[in-house]
Amino acid sequence: MSVFTTVTVEDLGPFLKRYSIGSLLELKGIAAGITNTNYFVTTTHGRYVLTLFETLAADELPFYVNLMAHLAHHGIAVAAPIANLEDQYVDELNGRPTLLVQCVPGTVVDEPSALQCAEVGEMLAQMHLAARSYQGQMPNPRGPKWWNATAPQLFELMGTDEAEQLRSELALQAEHCFDHLPQGVIHADLFRDNVLLNGDHVGGFIDFYYACNDVLAYDLAITLNDWCVTESGDIDSLRAKALLHGYQTVRPLGLDEIAAWPVLLRAAALRFWVSRLYDFYKPAAGEITYAKDPGHCQRVISAHAQRQDFYV
Amino acid sequence: MSVFTTVTVEDLGPFLKRYSIGSLLELKGIAAGITNTNYFVTTTHGRYVLTLFETLAADELPFYVNLMAHLAHHGIAVAAPIANLEDQYVDELNGRPTLLVQCVPGTVVDEPSALQCAEVGEMLAQMHLAARSYQGQMPNPRGPKWWNATAPQLFELMGTDEAEQLRSELALQAEHCFDHLPQGVIHADLFRDNVLLNGDHVGGFIDFYYACNDVLAYDLAITLNDWCVTESGDIDSLRAKALLHGYQTVRPLGLDEIAAWPVLLRAAALRFWVSRLYDFYKPAAGEITYAKDPGHCQRVISAHAQRQDFYV
Repeated sequence: MSVFTTVTVEDLGPFLKRYSIGSLLELKGIAAGITNTNYFVTTTHGRYVLTLFETLAADELPFYVNLMAHLAHHGIAVAAPIANLEDQYVDELNGRPTLLVQCVPGTVVDEPSALQCAEVGEMLAQMHLAARSYQGQMPNPRGPKWWNATAPQLFELMGTDEAEQLRSELALQAEHCFDHLPQGVIHADLFRDNVLLNGDHVGGFIDFYYACNDVLAYDLAITLNDWCVTESGDIDSLRAKALLHGYQTVRPLGLDEIAAWPVLLRAAALRFWVSRLYDFYKPAAGEITYAKDPGHCQRVISAHAQRQDFYV
Repeated sequence: MSVFTTVTVEDLGPFLKRYSIGSLLELKGIAAGITNTNYFVTTTHGRYVLTLFETLAADELPFYVNLMAHLAHHGIAVAAPIANLEDQYVDELNGRPTLLVQCVPGTVVDEPSALQCAEVGEMLAQMHLAARSYQGQMPNPRGPKWWNATAPQLFELMGTDEAEQLRSELALQAEHCFDHLPQGVIHADLFRDNVLLNGDHVGGFIDFYYACNDVLAYDLAITLNDWCVTESGDIDSLRAKALLHGYQTVRPLGLDEIAAWPVLLRAAALRFWVSRLYDFYKPAAGEITYAKDPGHCQRVISAHAQRQDFYV
């Protein structure tokens, strides 16, 4: 249950008086999410999500929050932040930086269809285009510098074969540089649980708190590695083709991106393999462990390493 | 039919490529509205309204368009403008300044209930609060200066009794000044046909092209004069009480506003009486006449003049 900071109806009354969204009808904790406290807030005007940031500080939030607002202004399906009467998106509640956003329609889909993958690809490309005019800058905190610094802390905790494969992947990535590829603002974590689907349409992309400036095709690779993967770590070719087709109807990949694609797919899997390994071998003291299986990312890499056809 | 400038599917294709709202599914002219060209645009992402401005120039639009965006960011039920890839709300199509906005849910209600009036009042008050942080400035183009300049052009075209009552109303208003009352951004034209109701809830306020800086309670008076009036020009006390109650749950009127209220109601009716008289007696050459009955506004004034109870 992702309610780390309790909010009561009594807390929320005075808080909502700083907004123009009507009066409270219902307040309900949200079980999803592992970093922040989230509540559904239903008022006389509509339904909103209230987020209390447990780890991000108020001065770190503008990049993410203004990005969500920017994308919403451009018609991208994201949860639009609501400004308070002081014209600020970030307010404070119970000692935490706090954000109210519009509810977006839809639900998380665990087993997406090819059509749904195509819609996600199309919206991702639209997001990449719409974000071109966004002024904020945020380096990727989970890029090569991070994984090269993190992996050495894990080698001796890992099994020999696993460590060997990790060293080999790091070496492969070290041979490649993607700086020449088109860059921009990327979501960087567009897994299935960060997209609400409304039927076959994208109701909204959510959870932008890993968004950063990086290679656009790398974002597509992260997305494909989750949306188009089977439980064994292999790629479902039908879904992969659909996702890539949907993306390319809006933003066709260039020859340089296609050339880099097989290694980008492995880079995208490596980033999550390393973070999952870290969460698995070095869980923070006292933290309830939500560690996801690192082996899944390892299998995705292995499957990519054996592929010949990458559908681009 | 309010399509003064024709837009075809062929025109719209390249235009939509400058936005992030998906590809066109349907284009359909909208019959409502008497000043601009409006179309429903349905894309793979959703439903939008496309407005081609026939009389407003591109440099007059930012006040209105940025206001709509500002209110939408604050959770006020308005049609949120969509920015293009150049990060501009106002684009151009077929030689006209053009705006795309999100569709808001609901329909125009000709015979509103007291509950619906209360909801409109509540949202209007929320709009007044949310607009406090809006920086744009626009004097009211239909204020006392305008009606005092316009009425003399009409006196000799009007019947004697009618002209007599108009002179008398102008004289009454000249004795009053409302500059001491709380001011802000007002909609200034919140008639029933400028609100979409979604059941009993406000789906959206629309048509902000008379919005300006003026007395807040005057905006409420304009709203009441339309929402709570009977066909005979009298006020329906149940709806009037509901509208005023809804408004005051968010923004209670001050004693100075209550003292001015009876004259404000007549000022609000006078403004529309004069503009309807003008449209009736001086229709623009070659213009299809949509002139609304000026006599209705005259009867509203007469009814206010005889009232004792104004429900505030």
